[in-house]
Amino acid sequence: MTLDADLLIHSAAQVVTCASDVPKRGAAMQDVGLISHGAVVVKDGRILAIGPTESIRERYSALQVINASGQVVCPGFVDPHTHVVYGGDRLGEFEQRIRGATYLEIMAAGGGIVSTMRATREASVEALVVATLPRLAQMLRLGTTTAEVKTGYGLDLESELKMLEAIAALDLAQPIDLVPTFMPAHAVPPEFNGRAQAYVDWVVAEMIPAAAEWYQTSHFAVDGRPLFCDVFCEQNAFDLAQSRRVLEAGLAYGLPAKIHADEFTSLGGVGLAVELRATSVDHLDATTAADVARLAESNVVGIVLPAVNFNLGSHEFANARALIDAGAAIALSTDINPGSAPCPSLPLVLAIATRYQRLLPAEVLNAATINAAFGLGLGDRVGALTPGKQADLLLLNCTDYRQLAYQFGGNLVSTVVKNGRIL
Amino acid sequence: MTLDADLLIHSAAQVVTCASDVPKRGAAMQDVGLISHGAVVVKDGRILAIGPTESIRERYSALQVINASGQVVCPGFVDPHTHVVYGGDRLGEFEQRIRGATYLEIMAAGGGIVSTMRATREASVEALVVATLPRLAQMLRLGTTTAEVKTGYGLDLESELKMLEAIAALDLAQPIDLVPTFMPAHAVPPEFNGRAQAYVDWVVAEMIPAAAEWYQTSHFAVDGRPLFCDVFCEQNAFDLAQSRRVLEAGLAYGLPAKIHADEFTSLGGVGLAVELRATSVDHLDATTAADVARLAESNVVGIVLPAVNFNLGSHEFANARALIDAGAAIALSTDINPGSAPCPSLPLVLAIATRYQRLLPAEVLNAATINAAFGLGLGDRVGALTPGKQADLLLLNCTDYRQLAYQFGGNLVSTVVKNGRIL
Repeated sequence: MTLDADLLIHSAAQVVTCASDVPKRGAAMQDVGLISHGAVVVKDGRILAIGPTESIRERYSALQVINASGQVVCPGFVDPHTHVVYGGDRLGEFEQRIRGATYLEIMAAGGGIVSTMRATREASVEALVVATLPRLAQMLRLGTTTAEVKTGYGLDLESELKMLEAIAALDLAQPIDLVPTFMPAHAVPPEFNGRAQAYVDWVVAEMIPAAAEWYQTSHFAVDGRPLFCDVFCEQNAFDLAQSRRVLEAGLAYGLPAKIHADEFTSLGGVGLAVELRATSVDHLDATTAADVARLAESNVVGIVLPAVNFNLGSHEFANARALIDAGAAIALSTDINPGSAPCPSLPLVLAIATRYQRLLPAEVLNAATINAAFGLGLGDRVGALTPGKQADLLLLNCTDYRQLAYQFGGNLVSTVVKNGRIL
Repeated sequence: MTLDADLLIHSAAQVVTCASDVPKRGAAMQDVGLISHGAVVVKDGRILAIGPTESIRERYSALQVINASGQVVCPGFVDPHTHVVYGGDRLGEFEQRIRGATYLEIMAAGGGIVSTMRATREASVEALVVATLPRLAQMLRLGTTTAEVKTGYGLDLESELKMLEAIAALDLAQPIDLVPTFMPAHAVPPEFNGRAQAYVDWVVAEMIPAAAEWYQTSHFAVDGRPLFCDVFCEQNAFDLAQSRRVLEAGLAYGLPAKIHADEFTSLGGVGLAVELRATSVDHLDATTAADVARLAESNVVGIVLPAVNFNLGSHEFANARALIDAGAAIALSTDINPGSAPCPSLPLVLAIATRYQRLLPAEVLNAATINAAFGLGLGDRVGALTPGKQADLLLLNCTDYRQLAYQFGGNLVSTVVKNGRIL
């Protein structure tokens, strides 16, 4: 034994590393980097070494030792698209929809994004933090150790900055590493009803600069985590030209781009994402064959969100099978939000994707770890068990990683290790 | 304060009783017996009283007191159709199916029920108990306090009795009350390949009498819990005449009837269930309009199992909406099993049913509590918060019971109380 470490986890039935220096594509998505009877060594919050148990135990000792026999060790999950900070709920709307109310009827009854906007505007930073903590706690119990969080329920300068403050406070208040995304162009607020263009002018002229200024003095900047800029490119939201203006303004202020594209209709958001070298393009339900090919040739990560389709009782899902087969780098995410996906569980998203999108267990695991990390621009930091990366990892109550997608509705996560610390 | 009790839970945002003396039908399924700011009193493992917090606290004191403010109290869930005891898993088959293998190809590769039969036959009682305990622990954490468990992976006398022994041992080894069902007619075993009739002869002549004898000396009989007899009435399993023989033999030996009917094809199982006064008829995916009406006029509980459809990535679900609208008493269940539903979660089943079967949050809660209890012949004992019933109840981390179905993939259960004991 030549080195002292902080934590040594050994004798795992499987260690799956999901290791890759680039987003996984094609056949690489079927490789989870499996080490049978594996071990992981952690020092100073980072992965120090990984390999077969015998060779690791010969070389390392540690203060804390976990015998993981009968368990799988895998990277902590990365949830790259969430709206987890919000006020209120949408329970009434949920019941109305079951009773057959149309989208327009729900809007007329005060539902939809605007109802969440009202509740979010009314809430203080503290109230948003208190409402969000239990959701993040559930996500953590289900294995999420890094998550993106969007603004976009404030839709005015003060409320959008309040959401950023809430995200920053939540990042410090609980173990999941949060990555903020500024998304004032999530919907046109009532004050700008019918005047999307004027709202975009305001977003570009005032809100994005203010968010960029906020970011510069935030702890996220110090930590090297980005602030993304996102836009909902969709009918009744923002058209392609408006989306371009928002994202270009974000880029000009140093905010890398994400885009909600092709959720219901294909407006050209994929092409825009590729052109602007966005970090990710998200939803992809209505993506054309030409755009599938375009995405596959690019470095943009495609993020699919099948919990949304499930939540709507839909029989249509993003064609993630075709996207992967074409060579696109695909990630999965919950999209947790009060309207279209009240779902904290990445494992359930994996289960949905294997069944309704015909992805393999290995593909969905890579999609929720290393590819999701690249979908946040953090592929060099999290999402895989590789020496030097953050020691964010899970112990699972099973002996085969495929159980993660095979079983559904329960929780196989027995232990979460975050930055080398056992939670 | 006039009475001393063991446990008093007060100040719950909502207490939902699901109380009913008969299985709920029609509009009654939309009534969960809601008490705002409610309280429940428990003594000697049973519900002693229930009502608004103020009136309850005036009348009762207790050794243990729980302030349930910000929480919902509801009955423990009853899972009335499970195959939770089995050996092995079906991971390989799961992956084959995603890759597009047909049912016949999977069978040819050694998959299907027969693969679980082989692993179950090879397992000792102890091995079955050890394999099943973590599944039951997951079910308990997700709120299930009573569950039916079927044999049917042994398919020979010795192995079927071994499964009954395992169910009995499991009942004593963990908190969920189990209700055994004898189901040697789950599939035709390889020894009887092409000779279903001969197998049924054997089931009727030898296996059912042996199971009935086993039951008489089991603790289930002492406790007043039934041993059911079930049959898979389906193409490539057992036809209607064979199903009748099995169930009539069971009835003759005092085993009340359940039947797997209309999962893929309608062979007349509903009519048989009604004629024989079965306790439940389960699956109902392919039920005809005439049989919907027949079921609605009967006292047979219809149990629908949407996790199976989800697991198969299906776009077809049992028409539970039509069944309820016609007046049938409907219950929900996981059907947890290694092939078609590796799912321990009744809350996820509720979430699926609200989205893909258009049932209301109130309907699915009644379906997983009081109606499920009647689907096990235990409607006088569990499934509702009514004075005199077992004190099996849940505290949920939410202030509105509808959250149970609205959220999905997480776990809102914070505390399980079983027979008055806080677990």
